[in-house]
Amino acid sequence: MSFRLIKTEKNTKARLGELTTPHGVVQTPVFMPVGTQASVKALSSEEVVEMGAEIILGNAYHLYLRPGEEIITKAGGLHKFMNWSGPILTDSGGYQIFSMNGLRKITREGVKFQSHIDGSSHFLTPERVIGIQSTLGSDIMMPLDECLSYPTDHVLAKESLDLTIDWLQRSIAEHARLNRISQVTGLKQMLFGIVQGSFYQDLRQESAERTCALELDGLAIGGVSVGEPKDLAADILDVTLPLLPPDKPRYLMGIGLPEDLWDYVEKGVDMFDCVVPTRNARNGQVFTSTGKRVITHACYKDDFSPLDENCGCFTCRNYTRAYLHHLFRAQELLGLRLNSLHNVHFVLNLINNIRQAIAEDRYPQAKAEFMAKYLQDGV
Amino acid sequence: MSFRLIKTEKNTKARLGELTTPHGVVQTPVFMPVGTQASVKALSSEEVVEMGAEIILGNAYHLYLRPGEEIITKAGGLHKFMNWSGPILTDSGGYQIFSMNGLRKITREGVKFQSHIDGSSHFLTPERVIGIQSTLGSDIMMPLDECLSYPTDHVLAKESLDLTIDWLQRSIAEHARLNRISQVTGLKQMLFGIVQGSFYQDLRQESAERTCALELDGLAIGGVSVGEPKDLAADILDVTLPLLPPDKPRYLMGIGLPEDLWDYVEKGVDMFDCVVPTRNARNGQVFTSTGKRVITHACYKDDFSPLDENCGCFTCRNYTRAYLHHLFRAQELLGLRLNSLHNVHFVLNLINNIRQAIAEDRYPQAKAEFMAKYLQDGV
Repeated sequence: MSFRLIKTEKNTKARLGELTTPHGVVQTPVFMPVGTQASVKALSSEEVVEMGAEIILGNAYHLYLRPGEEIITKAGGLHKFMNWSGPILTDSGGYQIFSMNGLRKITREGVKFQSHIDGSSHFLTPERVIGIQSTLGSDIMMPLDECLSYPTDHVLAKESLDLTIDWLQRSIAEHARLNRISQVTGLKQMLFGIVQGSFYQDLRQESAERTCALELDGLAIGGVSVGEPKDLAADILDVTLPLLPPDKPRYLMGIGLPEDLWDYVEKGVDMFDCVVPTRNARNGQVFTSTGKRVITHACYKDDFSPLDENCGCFTCRNYTRAYLHHLFRAQELLGLRLNSLHNVHFVLNLINNIRQAIAEDRYPQAKAEFMAKYLQDGV
Repeated sequence: MSFRLIKTEKNTKARLGELTTPHGVVQTPVFMPVGTQASVKALSSEEVVEMGAEIILGNAYHLYLRPGEEIITKAGGLHKFMNWSGPILTDSGGYQIFSMNGLRKITREGVKFQSHIDGSSHFLTPERVIGIQSTLGSDIMMPLDECLSYPTDHVLAKESLDLTIDWLQRSIAEHARLNRISQVTGLKQMLFGIVQGSFYQDLRQESAERTCALELDGLAIGGVSVGEPKDLAADILDVTLPLLPPDKPRYLMGIGLPEDLWDYVEKGVDMFDCVVPTRNARNGQVFTSTGKRVITHACYKDDFSPLDENCGCFTCRNYTRAYLHHLFRAQELLGLRLNSLHNVHFVLNLINNIRQAIAEDRYPQAKAEFMAKYLQDGV
């Protein structure tokens, strides 16, 4: 097994684990910064390493379209292409494709869609998506699945679930045919399954049981944070997580806000990814230990304190809120980077603190302490 | 004297010197990266230091409008505001104001203009511009001058010259009234004069003589690279430079392309600034030892060599042309930074090599060797 469960926290279902990949060992719970197009937006690979990220995310769909498999193959795989030597998980891009209402057509065989870049037509099957990720040489591959929006009616959700399971079986077969290694790097690749089922408890249960019956390296929960109320997502996780085998890593796709990390690690999730820390950073919003702040607000124009007094990131060590406010007002590129550095550091540091709280069996207290400050009114 | 002339190269008029400022010693000839709005575009102050920049440029006009004197005063000056501890030269912004055709009105007293940011009306006098730079706390201040476009007729150019000299005298008086120190940092500030005169040899001569008769810390040559043919600029420099005192630094404003550095250091220029290295970088164009390259060209899509085989910059040590090509095509912010890092490093490294060539009295050979490779057809 590449995953080792170290312990479960005394008061909650929070877990400490260790995931071993060809490019290094990842401590879980883990947050994976998102590098959709082979770049964690506004940051260099060196900065992402320096901040302590142990694994990042790439997107097979985006990289298939641009730069394309030929370039990645010639580069010797995605790691070399983007100069990142740690582990990479690649998402299939199913979520991106299924978000294109009207521009894609799903059949049993696969999905036909038009490129968001140039409108060209493409047809991807579960097998092709495994093949693309074999070219990328990611450490963890995700299968093509159908990700439903909220709400979706029960009949459609059941049909979609069946399709996703069928595609998963085909993905597993293709992965086996490739000897479970990247055809570019020759290194081992893991494959996770994705539990779907919309927001129906019976379907989530069915999906979890059928997915867990297959031979997989880890289990993901997809179709969450697609517009539903948060308590519905929590209910679904409460139904799904107990059905997943304890000896495999559990990845909650597309989630990673500070409050969500506390809420879902508590339920037993091991892995997270989210574009919000970098996207919000570029929009001026930063996380701090005393709440969210929007740096463009006028109150920061003459505030010469760091973004967060309790933060040790490059930005907080070197620059003030007043300077960042100026950079954003003056539309200077450096502002986008400094905010991104801070937000990614904030989330990575938070997940470190969460691991520490699990190790010390003080999860409820640590969460309460964090939340008391974090949920103050931000500015 | 804060400037020490170390030597003149044996075969040319190229000079080695040393300029001592309150924030450190600058070896000349020097290239000053441009940080108009308190940021060298796309780069952090730390990166600019690491690349070996000894002095950077700021712009009084831009910083007066945004963030404004109140903020800079509260920050304790421009150095602290932008976390740059080395020397700073601030341009007055005369060039920017006079480029606003129709949006500004010049009188003997000063210049009235509308902000390029919000259209608000402003009136700046030579005294106010010195006052702004006193607030900024730059090491070297530039006086408000009138910068003419090309061509300008002789009568207007003569009137403009008289105005620029008058404004310079008022600037000197204001600087003296402020005891030649920054009212924010308490540190010494140097003041340079600017030789104008359009492209008339008699006016350049008159301007040089009248400017050099005043008590100044250095002499700048303005009004060059305003649309004229390059040989005209060279002729004007040949007339002007011999009239400048050898014991003061000579700053050619707004110039800094690789070929220009060789051409004008040879004539005796000590200081340069130019936005082209960073601006072109953001447009995809990079300097290399074998010529200019445009990274978005298709030939780079599968070129896994560094931007320049002979370059030791962060970008060339870590990333390939193919990756940079991808970043630009995918509109990833990292591409703007990596190209900017490379171009600024390239120019700083070039000026180091130029200093070395002067030290070794092999300027003509070194220039010929550089140009032979650099002027190859770029791609």
